[in-house]
Amino acid sequence: MRAQADDRHPDLRAALENLLASGGKRVRPRLVLLMGGMLGADPERLVTLAAAIEMLHTATLVHDDLIDGSLMRRGNATLNANWTPAATVLTGDFIFARAAKLAAQTGSITVMEEFAETLAIMVNGELTQMFDSRGLADRKNYYQRIYAKTGSLFELSTHGAAIISPVDKETVANARNFGRELGTAFQIVDDILDFTGDQASVGKPVGSDLLHGLITLPALYYIEANPEDPKVKSLLNGHYHNEAEIAILVEAIRQSDAIHLALDEAKAYANRALHSLNGQPPSEERQALENLALYVTNRNV
Amino acid sequence: MRAQADDRHPDLRAALENLLASGGKRVRPRLVLLMGGMLGADPERLVTLAAAIEMLHTATLVHDDLIDGSLMRRGNATLNANWTPAATVLTGDFIFARAAKLAAQTGSITVMEEFAETLAIMVNGELTQMFDSRGLADRKNYYQRIYAKTGSLFELSTHGAAIISPVDKETVANARNFGRELGTAFQIVDDILDFTGDQASVGKPVGSDLLHGLITLPALYYIEANPEDPKVKSLLNGHYHNEAEIAILVEAIRQSDAIHLALDEAKAYANRALHSLNGQPPSEERQALENLALYVTNRNV
Repeated sequence: MRAQADDRHPDLRAALENLLASGGKRVRPRLVLLMGGMLGADPERLVTLAAAIEMLHTATLVHDDLIDGSLMRRGNATLNANWTPAATVLTGDFIFARAAKLAAQTGSITVMEEFAETLAIMVNGELTQMFDSRGLADRKNYYQRIYAKTGSLFELSTHGAAIISPVDKETVANARNFGRELGTAFQIVDDILDFTGDQASVGKPVGSDLLHGLITLPALYYIEANPEDPKVKSLLNGHYHNEAEIAILVEAIRQSDAIHLALDEAKAYANRALHSLNGQPPSEERQALENLALYVTNRNV
Repeated sequence: MRAQADDRHPDLRAALENLLASGGKRVRPRLVLLMGGMLGADPERLVTLAAAIEMLHTATLVHDDLIDGSLMRRGNATLNANWTPAATVLTGDFIFARAAKLAAQTGSITVMEEFAETLAIMVNGELTQMFDSRGLADRKNYYQRIYAKTGSLFELSTHGAAIISPVDKETVANARNFGRELGTAFQIVDDILDFTGDQASVGKPVGSDLLHGLITLPALYYIEANPEDPKVKSLLNGHYHNEAEIAILVEAIRQSDAIHLALDEAKAYANRALHSLNGQPPSEERQALENLALYVTNRNV
């Protein structure tokens, strides 16, 4: 990934170096390597695909942080905290370009098409969220949103790995399902942590989704159980900017059944992911994928 | 191109519709169709490539207009004149994504790699311009800048068309040269028009490059001929924000030899482009490419 900024502007190299050093969990590239390893893909092509997907992820984070005005990510200053918006837009574009080149270097047109399609889904999801999703308590909208935000790129990770593996169509479809279901579970847990985590470990203020008018699964459960709660009514009427009011609602949701109902739903997705590994013989990679699926719903919830 | 936003957010569809309706000269897709037509490429793949390149061009314009704060382009309001920066960033990203998918649909990994590489060159050029090029009177920097801005995408147009044509390596190399040389000529003429055009036809204030500290070929010739001119010294010392002073310098450049010297240089590039068509048998497409090369250096200069 680092080599992708060689021969480029020194500030761009420094920015990319910084972004890559800042870490993160690297769940997506791990998914690529494990799924492709299990299915017998060529390791070099797998590494190329893993790098392409992690860079696509990084590029979307750079633009998202700019759009949200976020100054911190993963405990580090975001690019836009130190750079102008213009330089940040272009740096994101540059990382897209390098990600696309790596995707092409997998040598698979199908991977490349899915790569481009995934980017379109993610961006369309961000736009829909921006224009239509604030204050909307709707499960279908929620699931579309988290598919666009997380499910689609997890899906690309395992689907892409399977495409470049010597396996039949059914195995490709199962690999794809694994990523999509796991990504859905992963995002539901992220949305739970927005309520239950502390600011230090989550890296953003507790309840920040609600403060932005984004109604996630725990809030949906709470709203369904308490339709007459005046705080709920106020939220649904678009009053989500009042920090003191939202803090009370967040506390009510934390204390309610909504948290474990949402967690059960995440676990159901993780189980469906595990189920799609059924047909695969035992292997180190399969075991690691199973562990990852278990880890996803047990992250400090 | 329009079909690329089907099933997407309605505002996104409307924005894309607007961008595509706003026209422009469509030089790049014409180059794709003519070069590929001359070299015997499959028409359907050519149309796909032409759409991919025009959409890549459109996406870079959307982000560039946002970055420059431009409110008008081609006589129409830019996207960022009516949308928030956030929505504009995402719309540009969406158009990138659709352009990448179309590029993948040409079915050529090499085209896809060149597509991604061109995007990286263009973005790196924008970043270099932003950080390093203001007030810099340097031919090498100028030529790198216009290659990144225009030459590279013209090059991709004719190179990509040749890659998907049933021709030998030498013909591919000649086709690539044609695009690069023609793109260079095209951008020099654009830079001349920034001095000689009127605001109505060019669509931006006369001398706007100099006002942004961008020293283009006409200014370079003038500076070389008049190193002791106090206006030149002031410009090279970074004083390019004074509109009244720059207006006087622009007028001096307009009246000087610099304009026709720059135009001669553009014509030399156009001639080199024409030269790389030698070897091709007469055809309608070859004739149209020759006409295009002549048109490029005769646009209302």
